[in-house]
Amino acid sequence: MSTSQEARLIIAASETDADLYYATGFLAPDSFIFLQTSSEKLLLMSDLEIDRAKSQSRVDQVLSLSHYLERAKNAGTESLTALDALCQLLIEKNIHKLHVPRTFPIASADNLRAKGYEITFPESVYWSEREIKTPEEIAHIRETQQHTEAAMEAAINLIRQSEIQNNTLYLNHEPLTSERVKHCILTILLKRECSATHTIVACGDQACDPHNEGSGPLLAHQPIIIDIFPRNNRTGYFADITRTVVKGQPSTALQNIYDTVFEGQQIALERIKEGADGKAIHEAIVNLFESRNYKTGEVDGRMQGYFHGTGHGIGLEIHEAPRMSKTAQTLRAGHVVTVEPGLYYPNRGAVRIEDLVVVTKNGSENLTTFPKVFQLA
Amino acid sequence: MSTSQEARLIIAASETDADLYYATGFLAPDSFIFLQTSSEKLLLMSDLEIDRAKSQSRVDQVLSLSHYLERAKNAGTESLTALDALCQLLIEKNIHKLHVPRTFPIASADNLRAKGYEITFPESVYWSEREIKTPEEIAHIRETQQHTEAAMEAAINLIRQSEIQNNTLYLNHEPLTSERVKHCILTILLKRECSATHTIVACGDQACDPHNEGSGPLLAHQPIIIDIFPRNNRTGYFADITRTVVKGQPSTALQNIYDTVFEGQQIALERIKEGADGKAIHEAIVNLFESRNYKTGEVDGRMQGYFHGTGHGIGLEIHEAPRMSKTAQTLRAGHVVTVEPGLYYPNRGAVRIEDLVVVTKNGSENLTTFPKVFQLA
Repeated sequence: MSTSQEARLIIAASETDADLYYATGFLAPDSFIFLQTSSEKLLLMSDLEIDRAKSQSRVDQVLSLSHYLERAKNAGTESLTALDALCQLLIEKNIHKLHVPRTFPIASADNLRAKGYEITFPESVYWSEREIKTPEEIAHIRETQQHTEAAMEAAINLIRQSEIQNNTLYLNHEPLTSERVKHCILTILLKRECSATHTIVACGDQACDPHNEGSGPLLAHQPIIIDIFPRNNRTGYFADITRTVVKGQPSTALQNIYDTVFEGQQIALERIKEGADGKAIHEAIVNLFESRNYKTGEVDGRMQGYFHGTGHGIGLEIHEAPRMSKTAQTLRAGHVVTVEPGLYYPNRGAVRIEDLVVVTKNGSENLTTFPKVFQLA
Repeated sequence: MSTSQEARLIIAASETDADLYYATGFLAPDSFIFLQTSSEKLLLMSDLEIDRAKSQSRVDQVLSLSHYLERAKNAGTESLTALDALCQLLIEKNIHKLHVPRTFPIASADNLRAKGYEITFPESVYWSEREIKTPEEIAHIRETQQHTEAAMEAAINLIRQSEIQNNTLYLNHEPLTSERVKHCILTILLKRECSATHTIVACGDQACDPHNEGSGPLLAHQPIIIDIFPRNNRTGYFADITRTVVKGQPSTALQNIYDTVFEGQQIALERIKEGADGKAIHEAIVNLFESRNYKTGEVDGRMQGYFHGTGHGIGLEIHEAPRMSKTAQTLRAGHVVTVEPGLYYPNRGAVRIEDLVVVTKNGSENLTTFPKVFQLA
């Protein structure tokens, strides 16, 4: 008998658990079991998914959950859940210590602890290597960003082609609404095998709430924030872009907000490189905004100013490490991060500009090629 | 000071956590904190989401995470995470016992336990009332099913309109592929504000793997399994339908498989009612199939026969309680379940037929109105 072993364990659905998808290369909507010993990666799969897992996953062995349930039953186990099948496998592999993700379900953890297993989890992320993107992963993200830019271009073209009547945008004699523009965006993404949720096309005061997705007719002379962040259905990698445009004539106040946000983004783009601190970059933008008298805080029960982070990592999750925000985090070559300062003032205007960059040893490479247009003639 | 209190706690993203969405009516892509005491429902929200939460959520109070971080800092807490803000709130509310979902993250649970909080979780689901759908919820599911049927109708019409050349389907002089049919389905769903992932249009031997989504040209005289299960973006409720069709002439073996699966589904539709056992219903179908000599098991390393459950609950999750499968589970009036037997034999054929029904006191109501077509002329 071999000596007592440790193993890494994940029980989750890889469609919503990026760690599991990263470990297995297998995308499934229902929960399954992943075990990595010192020598091999194993999956314990239901009958329904086992054939697909055998052909699509990147692991050493795909085992049958049914077989292990049968073996657990023969060994005298009474209740027969997936966890009992796992325990049977752990007994056979002589594994007593399990290293799980921080998100591991408490019910399963307590059940395993009650059976005598030692459960540990990491201080921060599970696969810290997932933060640093390989050239192949960067190529996937770049590809998704290209699809995202195609959708942005189509959206902005609709707004450009619209006509102004009574301060409202019209296209083909119908009001041009947030919904029409989003439908156009999603149609382009669908053709390119990408899926987007919560796409934002928000105009005027709607745009002052950074997560308001927008609805109704788009207005002339008002900012329209367009934020698109789809996932590639084939590769699983996300991308992210935001542009703010105005059809007609922006007010001087709005133009100044735009110019200041643009300047803030440039600060970040210049400072991002291996070893830079995300917090310092974020604070440099905060300081610029404050020096220009763009205050941040609650006014009449509503947040205004600059009340979100400057950027977030992106990959198999839309939001992952690292962040450029109030919390110190060191950027590393191979990080892919958004750079998305914004300013939001009800009645004056809202602007967010977002690019997606790869951190490099001496700076960054911008994966975004779409121009920063603002005023559309 | 009030006496020691208990509370329910969820920390999750409501977009992927149906319990949290059910509790709050607020759909958000990032994690937030929900606390329910004996007298009130509270949310602890980031600056970014607080305004949207105030306007969209169904809770008594939306509190600012920033404020509680500030209060935790003033109270001497050093590290400042969302969990520290939560603990500050728990202290102020005099709460010591927390009831969390089974999926609650181990890292947060252990952190709270180390601070002296008692953590419990339920034996099975968190909101057992979520299983039983209200008339309003049934109306939402019925609406999503109507959109789903519209997509099914468009898909089948494409196949019906196709022409057979060299045993391959052609439409407008191009091969009719799984991809083209799926694109048509997704376009219909997009217009109807529904989002579908993993839509299946699988032909011939591809269809023998129930989760193979299908690719490439569709073939004449072969089964084509079409399985569509979208979520309504507005309400969050899912629906689910499967049809199996053949363009051309099915073999006698395939026709027999279809007739047997159809008969199996009728058994379930007749037996489903308040108090019925899902396991007994599943086994009745298994017995029918075996009595007709349709065997289930592994052949040449691949599962064939009937190797999935007969049905699953549906609502804010695509798969939720109850199941009709190998495990005993009692059906209750207000359950909404799929009824989807199938048989899969490489080289002979694959068939699955799926309806969606509401369990009632004396039987069931079928939410599916789309006809069971098989052979398309």
